[in-house]
Amino acid sequence: MKLKEFQKWLLENKIDLAAFFNLDGECIDPNIMYFSGYSGFGALVITPKKAVLIAHRAEHERAKKTSRIRAIAAKGKLSEEIKKLVKKRRPRIGIDKNRMTVNFYKALKAATKARFVDVSGQCLRLRAAKTEEEVMIIRKACKITDEIIQKTLRNFRQFKTESEVSAFLINETNKLGLTTSFKPIVASGGNASRAHHEVENKPLKKGFCVIDFGIRYKGYCSDISRTIYLGKPSPREIALYQEVLDVQTKLIAQCRMGKSFIQIHQNAIKLFGNHAKYFTHLIGHGVGTEIHENPNPKKTQRRPVTNLLENSVITIEPGLYFSGKLGIRIEDDVLITKKGPEVLTKTGKNLLVIRR
Amino acid sequence: MKLKEFQKWLLENKIDLAAFFNLDGECIDPNIMYFSGYSGFGALVITPKKAVLIAHRAEHERAKKTSRIRAIAAKGKLSEEIKKLVKKRRPRIGIDKNRMTVNFYKALKAATKARFVDVSGQCLRLRAAKTEEEVMIIRKACKITDEIIQKTLRNFRQFKTESEVSAFLINETNKLGLTTSFKPIVASGGNASRAHHEVENKPLKKGFCVIDFGIRYKGYCSDISRTIYLGKPSPREIALYQEVLDVQTKLIAQCRMGKSFIQIHQNAIKLFGNHAKYFTHLIGHGVGTEIHENPNPKKTQRRPVTNLLENSVITIEPGLYFSGKLGIRIEDDVLITKKGPEVLTKTGKNLLVIRR
Repeated sequence: MKLKEFQKWLLENKIDLAAFFNLDGECIDPNIMYFSGYSGFGALVITPKKAVLIAHRAEHERAKKTSRIRAIAAKGKLSEEIKKLVKKRRPRIGIDKNRMTVNFYKALKAATKARFVDVSGQCLRLRAAKTEEEVMIIRKACKITDEIIQKTLRNFRQFKTESEVSAFLINETNKLGLTTSFKPIVASGGNASRAHHEVENKPLKKGFCVIDFGIRYKGYCSDISRTIYLGKPSPREIALYQEVLDVQTKLIAQCRMGKSFIQIHQNAIKLFGNHAKYFTHLIGHGVGTEIHENPNPKKTQRRPVTNLLENSVITIEPGLYFSGKLGIRIEDDVLITKKGPEVLTKTGKNLLVIRR
Repeated sequence: MKLKEFQKWLLENKIDLAAFFNLDGECIDPNIMYFSGYSGFGALVITPKKAVLIAHRAEHERAKKTSRIRAIAAKGKLSEEIKKLVKKRRPRIGIDKNRMTVNFYKALKAATKARFVDVSGQCLRLRAAKTEEEVMIIRKACKITDEIIQKTLRNFRQFKTESEVSAFLINETNKLGLTTSFKPIVASGGNASRAHHEVENKPLKKGFCVIDFGIRYKGYCSDISRTIYLGKPSPREIALYQEVLDVQTKLIAQCRMGKSFIQIHQNAIKLFGNHAKYFTHLIGHGVGTEIHENPNPKKTQRRPVTNLLENSVITIEPGLYFSGKLGIRIEDDVLITKKGPEVLTKTGKNLLVIRR
């Protein structure tokens, strides 16, 4: 996607070519999936005029099948193949320094004698606003995600362990020929207070149960969280759930073009008031070919875009976590449009109580 | 594992501390899992005398639960936490330059004013020979893998698509509270000629069907491939299968302590004779906390160990691939012992024919 925009930018910035690498056991660069649709090992080379995918020999056939860009098989070292693509003696090569390892960079410098420019920021910025085609794909990913999570909730009584819930979510995804976008989180009882809990193969505990799940469809991620209750919630627990839901509803309404994501995070803290110290993570993140991308509510090297752009897709996921006791998180994927926020994940949010 | 050996090595090499990082969207350093058992975000700091895991705030509880090493919650920047652990003005810090990104390295240099030493080679070398505890874990991983693949083969008639086979493998793994060590490969008919085929949600094709699958158990990987036949194989196809199996049997017998893995790969090429050009990948790789680790039949920065050591665990996986027509691969995990090779994956290798 946005290959032409990127090529135009290369030309304007006098960069002879950009090269991205997926290397076994070193790094996977999501820009390769973004520009070409291919996720295997190899390199993607983009010049202002052309784009070539150099796939590892054993993956050339797969590359030809999945890449939107012409794929050739690597004959020797990747650096040699790249040198063939530019005739200049000392080309200016764009690389993603957020993804390239120190040792590979050293080897590449020695092999090419090129001058290097970090293009990571420009890639992250391009990806922060989706094209119409990407929006269509993510919309579909969210629809499938809704169907799977709803089927899981309908079947919830059959599950005895967190592992069984997680296995069901993954299996429903795999049966469609798809994969999950991350290892599902199923956190019951006190486990729910760990935002990144790893599922246990032990009986589900009474209390809130957080389910955080997403799929990957045509290279693009979805990400949803719902919290249900196993057993009989106390009035205080019902009030806590309602508090998270109210905060989420208010924040989603604030998701407008040009709005600062940092501001939305700060507003979450304000809305939680005395409970703010139990809200232990950021309010959300962009979603795309990576499960965490731009825009972001915190500015770092990997997070250069903090404002919501037209056609950004972000999560809004407030939560409350009482250490070892309980956890609640409600998360939706939100598309930023000219008309305002559009919630792409549509599974209901009234507290589902499963008596056990 | 081997934390004491690594600490001794740090002392001998006058390295004040080593620091490894798992950073969201940048890198996952398997040395953290290897030394501590923790796989979440954060940093692992090892000095000659102590070891501390600095987990991201939202993951501190998970870290305390899964780490063998004392886990503290990061309060501010990781680099600040690390500075607190050494009092020296300009410490010598060991890092893994095969895993660290260029930009993170730059930031770390600016924040710490330290001198840096690449310890990637030493970590890879330590990990190339397993401890008794690691061998026990991998042995169990292989046993579970055998059970799952055998159940899959017994149930094969129920599958209509490659996706269904893959979903079954993953679901059987997940139901045990475990995950697969990589996305399973199920490649039928002409698809099997792509060594790294991505499963298709289309009817299984007649001919050979390669199944390449592994699980992760207590942080350690298994890796097995079996090839079955759907339909009625021709005498030539039966002969090709037998050829791969014969080559595998001969090569496994060569897996002895001190033997060169490069030599075993070259012997595979010799044994395949006229068919060598259809054998398009390396003969195997080490297996451990990473699915591909040392020893390796090719020496590179990431592959410093080429000799088979006592307690190395490697795969032996010869294959033949006729582009667009057929593919055959037979792969086992082999433990190198003083007495010779011990095959850890025990699923039968007579050609299983499923008439359709």
